[in-house]
Amino acid sequence: MLYIIYLVAISAEAASGALMAMRRKMDLFGLALVGTVTALGGGSIRDVLLGHYPLGWVAHPQYLAITVGAAMVAALMARWLARFESAFLLLDAMGLVAFSIIGCDVAATTGAHVSVVILMGMITGIAGGLLRDILCNQVPLVLKRDLYATVALLTGALYMGQLHLGVDQHVATLVALTVGFCVRLLAIRLALTLPVLKER
Amino acid sequence: MLYIIYLVAISAEAASGALMAMRRKMDLFGLALVGTVTALGGGSIRDVLLGHYPLGWVAHPQYLAITVGAAMVAALMARWLARFESAFLLLDAMGLVAFSIIGCDVAATTGAHVSVVILMGMITGIAGGLLRDILCNQVPLVLKRDLYATVALLTGALYMGQLHLGVDQHVATLVALTVGFCVRLLAIRLALTLPVLKER
Amino acid sequence: MLYIIYLVAISAEAASGALMAMRRKMDLFGLALVGTVTALGGGSIRDVLLGHYPLGWVAHPQYLAITVGAAMVAALMARWLARFESAFLLLDAMGLVAFSIIGCDVAATTGAHVSVVILMGMITGIAGGLLRDILCNQVPLVLKRDLYATVALLTGALYMGQLHLGVDQHVATLVALTVGFCVRLLAIRLALTLPVLKER
Repeated sequence: MLYIIYLVAISAEAASGALMAMRRKMDLFGLALVGTVTALGGGSIRDVLLGHYPLGWVAHPQYLAITVGAAMVAALMARWLARFESAFLLLDAMGLVAFSIIGCDVAATTGAHVSVVILMGMITGIAGGLLRDILCNQVPLVLKRDLYATVALLTGALYMGQLHLGVDQHVATLVALTVGFCVRLLAIRLALTLPVLKER
Repeated sequence: MLYIIYLVAISAEAASGALMAMRRKMDLFGLALVGTVTALGGGSIRDVLLGHYPLGWVAHPQYLAITVGAAMVAALMARWLARFESAFLLLDAMGLVAFSIIGCDVAATTGAHVSVVILMGMITGIAGGLLRDILCNQVPLVLKRDLYATVALLTGALYMGQLHLGVDQHVATLVALTVGFCVRLLAIRLALTLPVLKER
Repeated sequence: MLYIIYLVAISAEAASGALMAMRRKMDLFGLALVGTVTALGGGSIRDVLLGHYPLGWVAHPQYLAITVGAAMVAALMARWLARFESAFLLLDAMGLVAFSIIGCDVAATTGAHVSVVILMGMITGIAGGLLRDILCNQVPLVLKRDLYATVALLTGALYMGQLHLGVDQHVATLVALTVGFCVRLLAIRLALTLPVLKER
């Protein structure tokens, strides 16, 4: 199930990258690249930081076909998609949570400390969007926005905590997925944010 | 022959990086760094993504001397070089095509799927310029510009396609180099671009 | 001793990152992330370029606790810290020099050429600040500023030169640390800069 969610998630992330690239008047190649980097960049950064080779899309090039396809489709249907912004937010929330759990799974296989595992889950969830914003030359949204990275951390901690307590992996995945997803939706709905400190 | 073209190419790329850094009023160190990153960044990103160590310039530090030297010379002769912009475009086109073929060669040794090999060739060709633009705080040109990345993809596909058909490697290199170079020049001359989709 | 200086240095760098993130109105998570990347990013880039795994903070997650803590403390005391800007410059100078020496030590264990070792020392010293500036969407200060990278190069060269001549490692560390630190302070005091070439 996580695998299907993963495929949906990379498609949604690729679409979100392509739409932002369009607003920057990039050409078709730019859309495809920004979409792909948004979708697969988080996992790639995680794997490079862990020295975990080969990267997912190097071993499974079909992921590239999915992200390029999703970016193209999103670009062609941009006007139509604008009407479904809330559907995008749902897919993006699902992707964030799924990426975080998958990132924890991968990091755990390297024997890293549990705090590093949870952090790697968060990196998997948010780094793609961060790279997208750097490529589009703006201050990364994730550094400014509502509980986005916090949800990724929470999901990873909940997942790893359950595994530590001996909970079955399928149950742990389902619980972390559901709770993380709901917290993210609540954060959007209530416009929850972390405090921003003022310099004076 | 590819080796000589490679040396010319990293010099040309280092010079292009240094000239852009000058426009941002960077100091001599900034020129040298941006020039070096432009010239060697594409290959470095490829090798890090593949887990292919040591990196080229770690094993052959003389490349660093070449790029720093080229950046300095370009900066000192900037006013004079401005008259030869078309020569720069030729060198840059040659570099793009040579980088792509070299990138394919390196990636092929890791046993990756052919689609990944061609993509790594493209990354070798374009990622240096992309890093240059990020360091200079602007939306990467390659995401907006005429058939640049497309030429890199085409060159790599042509090269790998010939190898797949059993063509001698020297012949394949020469053909891919020539065709890629001509397509790039045509793209410049005719101002060919990929379509840019409009949001409305 | 170098270890204690290292801990002070990552705290100072994390604080400097957090303060810049505040000015960009990032939330608490953004402060923690930018602070951590500023403090640990240089060493991480060095290790990824060298293929030297695991990264420092993956093996020692307590470093993450230090940088997040320092970022939070700095943010809470920002108004108060503004009065001690010169103390910050001292800590930052100490960190730059210590990072450079530690970076040389790590790179030397991989058997790289001495020019690469010194370069890796410099990368360890400056890349954290460079990533901070990219995350905050500005042209990296280090590419524009007074003798910052130059001091890192000088410190590394002095350190490796002494080791090459058979000087005891503790002595070499102390000498490089002292000289580098003094040159950096002199550069600040005298507002020394590398020349900036003008295009016309």
